Amino acid sequence: MKIFAFDDSGWSRLGVMTSDTHFVALADLAPEFPDSLIAILTRDHGLDRVEQAVAGVIGDRALADVRRIAFLDGPNAIWALGLNFKTHIRETGLTTSDKYPHAFLRTAASLVGADEPLKAPSEDVARAYDYEGELGVVIGKPGRFIPKEHALSHVAGYTCVNEGSVREYQVHNRQFALGKNFEASGSYGPWLVTPDVFGDPASHTLITRLNGIVRQRSKLDDMLFDVAAVISYLSEGYTLNPGDLIAMGTPGVLKPQPGDKEGNDLDRQFGLFKIPGLVHMRPGDVVEVEIDGIGTLTNKVVGDQPRAYRAG
Amino acid sequence: MKIFAFDDSGWSRLGVMTSDTHFVALADLAPEFPDSLIAILTRDHGLDRVEQAVAGVIGDRALADVRRIAFLDGPNAIWALGLNFKTHIRETGLTTSDKYPHAFLRTAASLVGADEPLKAPSEDVARAYDYEGELGVVIGKPGRFIPKEHALSHVAGYTCVNEGSVREYQVHNRQFALGKNFEASGSYGPWLVTPDVFGDPASHTLITRLNGIVRQRSKLDDMLFDVAAVISYLSEGYTLNPGDLIAMGTPGVLKPQPGDKEGNDLDRQFGLFKIPGLVHMRPGDVVEVEIDGIGTLTNKVVGDQPRAYRAG
Repeated sequence: MKIFAFDDSGWSRLGVMTSDTHFVALADLAPEFPDSLIAILTRDHGLDRVEQAVAGVIGDRALADVRRIAFLDGPNAIWALGLNFKTHIRETGLTTSDKYPHAFLRTAASLVGADEPLKAPSEDVARAYDYEGELGVVIGKPGRFIPKEHALSHVAGYTCVNEGSVREYQVHNRQFALGKNFEASGSYGPWLVTPDVFGDPASHTLITRLNGIVRQRSKLDDMLFDVAAVISYLSEGYTLNPGDLIAMGTPGVLKPQPGDKEGNDLDRQFGLFKIPGLVHMRPGDVVEVEIDGIGTLTNKVVGDQPRAYRAG
Repeated sequence: MKIFAFDDSGWSRLGVMTSDTHFVALADLAPEFPDSLIAILTRDHGLDRVEQAVAGVIGDRALADVRRIAFLDGPNAIWALGLNFKTHIRETGLTTSDKYPHAFLRTAASLVGADEPLKAPSEDVARAYDYEGELGVVIGKPGRFIPKEHALSHVAGYTCVNEGSVREYQVHNRQFALGKNFEASGSYGPWLVTPDVFGDPASHTLITRLNGIVRQRSKLDDMLFDVAAVISYLSEGYTLNPGDLIAMGTPGVLKPQPGDKEGNDLDRQFGLFKIPGLVHMRPGDVVEVEIDGIGTLTNKVVGDQPRAYRAG
């Protein structure tokens, strides 16, 4: 099942895909379902009940007619992992523990949905604004001290994440902090794909494209800590909640081809790490994160407001 | 004005103090006020309207009869600062930027309210569970690119924070992450005190007591980055939201007195930093964070569940 949120005249509604092009609005089908995916996940067998209600239904709404938005309203925690793909560890030259995941938090306000624009910081604020294509894992069933062998049974589904990062701010001090939490700097979507459809995360491939050019391509079996290991680790500290999102870290960038003008242009790179093949996101760009078995998360990039005081 | 949340048979209600011992329940006074402090802050002049409604009222409810709980429901961001007091920087021997605050995020689930118990990790999970008495700043008015000179006008009020930390997990990798986000490991309260009552943060003194013994005492003028500087910095990245909480960092621990058995017992300290005068929190302890002009945040410490799988 593919479930997503869309904007309905300012209200967030849930839809379930019934074909490649059409969907059914959950509220049309069964008014007792809440408009919040987290509320559904919190109910016993909530997603199963949605799946039963949708079975056999021919969706009457075209996906092309709606704007998909972020589908997690008020999640308790959004975790992201740094340095979790071996190719990315190598390209940064940084070290990381091989015992414990390198986790940090993002705010909900730092992430938009599939048909919403990403905001590139104004050039007078920062210029090293980078995509990070990642697998997103959404928790469905609460749990504490979850053993690895039970971890995947706590997953509601998977999604694509663009863990957009502002590098200058990320290295301001010891913690990533603000550099990973610029307003609308990242995204996830286009929908939640349930595990029965997605299967084993490690068997899939992630591709990130900027303006149609592939900048990242990696099997998801290159992780230092896999999905089960990260769920198990985080659950040592707190009871994982339905709607908790974990972005599993990004692979390294691909080497540019000789004719790849932007990818070979290190002079246009800013911040600490200058890596051939890395191209910062700028207003006007289109960035895609695609994972086979999920689909493609596509966002336009717009310019955020320049440095000027705005109150209220 | 001192405004707080209390438990009313499972519902979160707001109360406003009318004397040292009594308060009025906002819902009793004016049913149109929402039960959410963030909802009130989000309204134009929301706190002013509460203050007008409460003016002259003699509260009929005894504070001693209710249980105060966390007063921020679903905040967009809870920031905390590491290494922001010069005494704490010195005792850790760590370096920090003098240009940019050392910020990180906490989840709402990691913090409880004033009359709720803190959870000490089970000893089979971690043992270096430490108090960090801090000043908490709650944002009232949204803003972006806020200049320092306007920053305090965006503050709804102040509170005490115990930024409880699990040291073993905090140093697992490059980011603090889980070590700062154990379930119910920190607290804030007992209430929000508005700036007209509190005045200049730098003129106040913070005291942390464990089982009645003073372990931290510091003027709040020892910060590397003051309240205005931190608000201004964070607003470079995103639009600060009503209800955003910023814990301003903790001062160093006090040296133990010769007769202070626990404070002098380095053998009972775990984790990376062993500092005379530091005593970990354990089940059965009572910890207090007091700031003059606010009051005292008091929490009992209970033991969290041992390492055993629990689903659902």
